[in-house]
Amino acid sequence: MARRGAGAGREPVTHQLTEAVQGQYHYTIGPYSSPVLSVKPGDRIVVETRDAFEGAIKTEQDMPTQKLRMPFLNPQNGPIMIEGAEKGDVIAVHIESMVPRGQNPRGTCCMIPEFGALTGTTYTATLNNPLPEIVRKINLDEKRVLWSDRVTLPYNPHIGTLSLSPEIDSINSLTPDQHGGNMDLPDMGPGSITYLPVRSPGARLFIGDAHACQGDGEVCGVAVEHETITTIRVDLIKNWAIEWPRMEKEEFIMAIGSARPLEDATRIAYRELVRWMAAEYRFDQWDAYMLLSQCGRVRLGNFVDPKYTVGAAIPKKYILDPA
Amino acid sequence: MARRGAGAGREPVTHQLTEAVQGQYHYTIGPYSSPVLSVKPGDRIVVETRDAFEGAIKTEQDMPTQKLRMPFLNPQNGPIMIEGAEKGDVIAVHIESMVPRGQNPRGTCCMIPEFGALTGTTYTATLNNPLPEIVRKINLDEKRVLWSDRVTLPYNPHIGTLSLSPEIDSINSLTPDQHGGNMDLPDMGPGSITYLPVRSPGARLFIGDAHACQGDGEVCGVAVEHETITTIRVDLIKNWAIEWPRMEKEEFIMAIGSARPLEDATRIAYRELVRWMAAEYRFDQWDAYMLLSQCGRVRLGNFVDPKYTVGAAIPKKYILDPA
Amino acid sequence: MARRGAGAGREPVTHQLTEAVQGQYHYTIGPYSSPVLSVKPGDRIVVETRDAFEGAIKTEQDMPTQKLRMPFLNPQNGPIMIEGAEKGDVIAVHIESMVPRGQNPRGTCCMIPEFGALTGTTYTATLNNPLPEIVRKINLDEKRVLWSDRVTLPYNPHIGTLSLSPEIDSINSLTPDQHGGNMDLPDMGPGSITYLPVRSPGARLFIGDAHACQGDGEVCGVAVEHETITTIRVDLIKNWAIEWPRMEKEEFIMAIGSARPLEDATRIAYRELVRWMAAEYRFDQWDAYMLLSQCGRVRLGNFVDPKYTVGAAIPKKYILDPA
Amino acid sequence: MARRGAGAGREPVTHQLTEAVQGQYHYTIGPYSSPVLSVKPGDRIVVETRDAFEGAIKTEQDMPTQKLRMPFLNPQNGPIMIEGAEKGDVIAVHIESMVPRGQNPRGTCCMIPEFGALTGTTYTATLNNPLPEIVRKINLDEKRVLWSDRVTLPYNPHIGTLSLSPEIDSINSLTPDQHGGNMDLPDMGPGSITYLPVRSPGARLFIGDAHACQGDGEVCGVAVEHETITTIRVDLIKNWAIEWPRMEKEEFIMAIGSARPLEDATRIAYRELVRWMAAEYRFDQWDAYMLLSQCGRVRLGNFVDPKYTVGAAIPKKYILDPA
Repeated sequence: MARRGAGAGREPVTHQLTEAVQGQYHYTIGPYSSPVLSVKPGDRIVVETRDAFEGAIKTEQDMPTQKLRMPFLNPQNGPIMIEGAEKGDVIAVHIESMVPRGQNPRGTCCMIPEFGALTGTTYTATLNNPLPEIVRKINLDEKRVLWSDRVTLPYNPHIGTLSLSPEIDSINSLTPDQHGGNMDLPDMGPGSITYLPVRSPGARLFIGDAHACQGDGEVCGVAVEHETITTIRVDLIKNWAIEWPRMEKEEFIMAIGSARPLEDATRIAYRELVRWMAAEYRFDQWDAYMLLSQCGRVRLGNFVDPKYTVGAAIPKKYILDPA
Repeated sequence: MARRGAGAGREPVTHQLTEAVQGQYHYTIGPYSSPVLSVKPGDRIVVETRDAFEGAIKTEQDMPTQKLRMPFLNPQNGPIMIEGAEKGDVIAVHIESMVPRGQNPRGTCCMIPEFGALTGTTYTATLNNPLPEIVRKINLDEKRVLWSDRVTLPYNPHIGTLSLSPEIDSINSLTPDQHGGNMDLPDMGPGSITYLPVRSPGARLFIGDAHACQGDGEVCGVAVEHETITTIRVDLIKNWAIEWPRMEKEEFIMAIGSARPLEDATRIAYRELVRWMAAEYRFDQWDAYMLLSQCGRVRLGNFVDPKYTVGAAIPKKYILDPA
Repeated sequence: MARRGAGAGREPVTHQLTEAVQGQYHYTIGPYSSPVLSVKPGDRIVVETRDAFEGAIKTEQDMPTQKLRMPFLNPQNGPIMIEGAEKGDVIAVHIESMVPRGQNPRGTCCMIPEFGALTGTTYTATLNNPLPEIVRKINLDEKRVLWSDRVTLPYNPHIGTLSLSPEIDSINSLTPDQHGGNMDLPDMGPGSITYLPVRSPGARLFIGDAHACQGDGEVCGVAVEHETITTIRVDLIKNWAIEWPRMEKEEFIMAIGSARPLEDATRIAYRELVRWMAAEYRFDQWDAYMLLSQCGRVRLGNFVDPKYTVGAAIPKKYILDPA
Repeated sequence: MARRGAGAGREPVTHQLTEAVQGQYHYTIGPYSSPVLSVKPGDRIVVETRDAFEGAIKTEQDMPTQKLRMPFLNPQNGPIMIEGAEKGDVIAVHIESMVPRGQNPRGTCCMIPEFGALTGTTYTATLNNPLPEIVRKINLDEKRVLWSDRVTLPYNPHIGTLSLSPEIDSINSLTPDQHGGNMDLPDMGPGSITYLPVRSPGARLFIGDAHACQGDGEVCGVAVEHETITTIRVDLIKNWAIEWPRMEKEEFIMAIGSARPLEDATRIAYRELVRWMAAEYRFDQWDAYMLLSQCGRVRLGNFVDPKYTVGAAIPKKYILDPA
């Protein structure tokens, strides 16, 4: 069901976005940084992503308050220019594969003071003492995440932060919004296609923040952060005016909203899904609204960042023509 | 893994809570109404639930603004007294089965002015004109919900509203809170066990608001409302001091929070789940917190009622002993 | 500008609602308690209010967690029946005077664990350790509140909790809502008239929670709580269909909303004020809306209770006829 | 009580930031634009501000949806470089005077579809039809705002948007945050001193969005927007590490928070005020917290922008030494 893009018939060229090609990673998503790569619609890019702490937390003794320095967090590869992209178009990002790289323990999780959902924060300002600072280094491979002696989790890699540049603003890589950003949706892994609205010439794609696994909401504020080789294919869909990111996988389509409070993120996601069903799947908008009340599915991305992210989805089986 | 209750060894007695036995249904959950039944821990009750509109919407021409009268909505069976229950105990409600009753079309969905998630409401007060008033009558049986010519949904029955009485307050049946109430969690169907904290002598159990299916969030404010025969078994767990409702099914345990804004409901659910894991599954609380950041699952109940409901869950396979 | 009520021409009878007449104070506002007094429209009532802790905190060594027992907080006088009041009417409560009573130190302030705006709470659930428990006993008289060696505040008495009964619910005295309740608006002192919608026969008026002074938001969760002799006059306005409480003083009219999140409380207050201006002061609704954008005044009641309260006001000089 | 800055002893130089000197106005606040002026601490700047619509709405027939183009709204003068300013310092902006300029009607107010507090918006997404589009052109002078035949308001000029650049982000001029931005506080007029944290070399000051008057919350989303000659004096305070903007006037000090939901903005403001009192006015933090619960004052800036703004204040008479 994926939209046919401008690169559909082309033989894809494969580009390597290694650490060396990238050089300086970015901590803000905007139109002011220098491109690292220029590709054509349909091309493939093999990206060496860094972890959200840029490797600064090497042992369980490396405390975040000593090793991390705001706002230089969540390093992003990019910007990648896509030829022909203009305001009013959409870039489709197909994630083809993700594999971990680096020496084990590759994974990092931690509790950072005044960050996370179950603590006072910069925004939900309290006078309580902060929670303790704790670091976990976690062995993992392409199949499993060895959380503890007791718990082994499946390796479920996905991209936490995926963006196109805003038109004139530049937004730190911790914040999700209409441009994409730090959405932290566990669905955004291999097999997914993310649609992002183009707002500046060449689209300026940024990517980073790979997770080996993540629960809904990323409740302590940190997933199993790791560095990867992530392979994506990008395509260009001309003249598709969408306001917010969208996604599809084999089984469902999903609209994505990012806002505070959390009900506003959910409202955005569901409204965009109603509009999508009405515009492209021949639903009357009120029928779509009432049907979603019966079978809509909500995925909580993060509720720890400066804005929260929610995806609202409907299984494709309910929207495709029976024929 | 279900907690062993006081009625565990007993041969259950089966009680019939028919419409005739019930007499007057209730629209407020509190300690001031007269009991309709008294049962022992372990007993089974077969309940004739009415739909959320108490049958007042019979055709697609019956407009909610003419047929419904606030606050006389969402009729509840009960109160059912459970012998021996006291403040500080917990009632476990096992839902054994749910079957639809009444003539087809049995199901009702509608759009009610200033009610639902994608419209201004009594609380999110706007000056916009309300959305149109629309009624849908829907045929359904024990297998399927015939939504439209185009869409057939599986019959996934569950209880929207399940409560014990507060200690001195009486709360309308549209609002969820610490006592349970209108949680609208699609997981609360056959095979589920819901744990509710007892706050008044005899517990005073109320039940109603059966849905034939419901999407996450119940976005238009109404599910496929229908009347049922719902069979439950109730048990009494002495001296289990919990603050909020909890649930378990075969695959997971879930803590439930109800509040506004939606992030507060989510915070409650996740904090209660951390506490549950620490108290009963030998987790250090920080390990539990960070682990949920990797594998927690969030279910959005409703985000249309006076308070919103969220369930936070963890698969049992991650918390049970390997032995 | 006060509305002319049914008792306007009558010679008021004065009733004494002493502690002895009251007997048992109430912690929940509803239709299920026994009246303590029945009055006619226009009558005066002299009320002996207790402080919010019902005198349980006598010294700075009396810790709230040991002396207070939920939900038995914020004791209310009432219910007072007003003859002739029916659903669809309004009761006007004129506060004529408030004077402190009891031995000094009469005032109590404290920090209660997990209560207040700058701490994790039952609803904004965090894993942080609670703030310390601190009690302050404060001398005061009819002129001054002797906060500390350094700070003396003016005595600015007002009623924190003023309610009529809901129709079928009973709401704890800590929560504000459409029925009034724990609004904590510092404007609600001598000289104010509060309009409350009648929802049950006889209106069933409750009053309590006197503050010697209070800042906007009541940020630590507690004002200078004290017991008083509060003199009110009540009148009955037939057939005035309002949804939320309203207030007026010499200089302004104010609409009151209570909800979470705080923007919803503010939206309610401003929408009700637009409607009031349109219905009774000959404003076009859009002119009212845009004018309030230039001269509306917002008072934050509490943002610490289960629901937050906001008053939106406009000076009378802008709405009265110049003539 | 104003902090003594680096420019305290200097004879101020006066700079003219006319429309011609400004050239291109800015719609995003960041480190990527070219400076228009460089001044020394203590210098005076006379600024020709444009109105929030940059003069595009000239008559009551000029519809916002036709004349305005996102994100090119709310034009800002600047960036002004202040010599010696570095990350960790503070810039104090003294507003000395504001006078309207341009031909009458100088003032513009309007209702913009999906913008404002009492309507569904981009973030509080609803399916309702938008409110009507209405434009008001308003005569005004240095004394009065002639709102309508019926209502004349006092001229109460203030600056809606005042900012220093973030370190690496660039934030549209409609959004308030830690850098200042679109705070819309009616107190920010002549006689006020605003303290803004420096995050980039030279501070990079932006200013704009003058209002002739504004109510609390700017409820319809637009004040009486007008162009002015605004005279400011800027000073540099070295090594004052504050996280959020602060303000002082003759009678009070005020801490400012911007966030969603509105309770978070209020929490930030009050926490910053507690910290300010503890750091500079010899208050124990718990005494400050409890005292603010008795005499704190809250000003609602806007609750219509992407983030909401709240100021929390305490009268100077309660914090200054009696001596």
